[in-house]
Amino acid sequence: MQANNNFQEWAKFHQSRMEAVLDRVLPSPEVMPQRLHQAMRYAALGGGKRIRPLLAFAAGEITGAPVERVEAVAAAVEMIHVYSLVHDDLPCMDDDALRRGKPTCHVQFDEATALLVGDSLQSLAFQLMAERTLTHSPSLQLEMIRLLALATGSRGMAGGQAIDLDSVGKTLTQTELEFMHIHKTGALIRASVMLGAHCGQGVDSDLLDAINHYAKCIGLAFQVVDDILDVESSTATLGKTAGKDADSNKPTYVSTLGLGAARQLAEELHQNALSALIDLGDRGRRLVQLADFILRRHS
Amino acid sequence: MQANNNFQEWAKFHQSRMEAVLDRVLPSPEVMPQRLHQAMRYAALGGGKRIRPLLAFAAGEITGAPVERVEAVAAAVEMIHVYSLVHDDLPCMDDDALRRGKPTCHVQFDEATALLVGDSLQSLAFQLMAERTLTHSPSLQLEMIRLLALATGSRGMAGGQAIDLDSVGKTLTQTELEFMHIHKTGALIRASVMLGAHCGQGVDSDLLDAINHYAKCIGLAFQVVDDILDVESSTATLGKTAGKDADSNKPTYVSTLGLGAARQLAEELHQNALSALIDLGDRGRRLVQLADFILRRHS
Repeated sequence: MQANNNFQEWAKFHQSRMEAVLDRVLPSPEVMPQRLHQAMRYAALGGGKRIRPLLAFAAGEITGAPVERVEAVAAAVEMIHVYSLVHDDLPCMDDDALRRGKPTCHVQFDEATALLVGDSLQSLAFQLMAERTLTHSPSLQLEMIRLLALATGSRGMAGGQAIDLDSVGKTLTQTELEFMHIHKTGALIRASVMLGAHCGQGVDSDLLDAINHYAKCIGLAFQVVDDILDVESSTATLGKTAGKDADSNKPTYVSTLGLGAARQLAEELHQNALSALIDLGDRGRRLVQLADFILRRHS
Repeated sequence: MQANNNFQEWAKFHQSRMEAVLDRVLPSPEVMPQRLHQAMRYAALGGGKRIRPLLAFAAGEITGAPVERVEAVAAAVEMIHVYSLVHDDLPCMDDDALRRGKPTCHVQFDEATALLVGDSLQSLAFQLMAERTLTHSPSLQLEMIRLLALATGSRGMAGGQAIDLDSVGKTLTQTELEFMHIHKTGALIRASVMLGAHCGQGVDSDLLDAINHYAKCIGLAFQVVDDILDVESSTATLGKTAGKDADSNKPTYVSTLGLGAARQLAEELHQNALSALIDLGDRGRRLVQLADFILRRHS
């Protein structure tokens, strides 16, 4: 199945694998404190495109990484992503009631529980990164944990979120907008790709550089497409509230560049991402397909 | 100075050291996103008894750990502790306006920033645990990260907080109360002691067992004393709102056992903690003094 050339099947296979891994690593809803564990499972299971795990799996295939190792990394980045969604949806942040087509965690449970869900998912991600064997070298594994922590914290995802909050009602230049999104979305997407690649053995630095360049482009492209979809799609298609950014007066690629130029930027980033992979030939095909998938998604 | 027998001086010295280390490892307020970094520094610097770092330093002295290693561990546990205070003080949790004698983080800044402060401090703690050399063996260091993650997450501190929330308005047995506090306060206090000890080299398992037993007793004693102080002290002395637990109808050791029995329990735990250290003789004196300090504090 994994060797199948069909991207849809490959993606479906790995999405199911991810669901099974998350189901296994999340504490049972029977374990104290039950309500917290139920809420963690509610937030993390049964939804999402699992783009970050797919990127990790695809990068791991290129570097010949054993799949059990990539699984742990994929679960960790997805838990960080889910924690960020749960906290972003809270009333003091984006105040959103709908996520992945379901009521958001604080609506389904309560605010305090949602706060603890995010906090606990972050801890669990680092626990997983520390307790599983991710690579042949414990020193490299420490470096991988550092990479995830940096991508997650105030100089990564959480920092991007802070800049996003500060930018409401302001007009940003394209450079400022890029800085914000390189942190908010780009950092974790890039970490997903790099962590998947690091699970392989004896990965040479040229290959890592190529994958890193790909990851940077795709991280930014992801956000440009998100901004375009926020304008173009309906709430039903997105599974989250559409038109949110414009309503909350947040600067986006569409508001900054206009729709046409935003589309063109997405296309350029797409091409740059593909160029980075040229030397990999057929080995890079899953990353190529994922770039296409990210660019052409409708939700 | 470190060899000085006077506990007050030893504690003061290590509190200043901790302040300096935190000042160094927290991102500069000049670095983007500035407001978030200012808020992280506001929450973490210039206050607190630094009991967890002191426990780590004391345990590290017993196992002959280099102080630069214990510093990193001490800063990490303190950042986890501060993150938990910032989130606990939020309106959706304890809704508190005063902490360490200053306005709480969300009052001084805003709720969204306080949320991100807690999130980012957690990430930074794990970054520090991964990027510093904490011990001679990278495998043991991974085990130390796992220990901190477990103590922090849903089966540790955050889990204890969740049980605490669920217990409002309920009558708990002493066993239930103990379960809650072993998680809420005990887990991180125990981790502080154990992580400090692990920074030493070739630590034998009998010694670790003794320290672990001490840490368990002291973790629980800490909470019992907290509950007593909440009833007996004034807001001015505590630096946080006094009488909070009774007002919010939370079960405490005082409400469950009565004041006299709570005092007696604290004394028993104190004695148990000291008994665990008997074989260490003079090597255990800082931990003995810390037990006295925790039991006899007034805030």
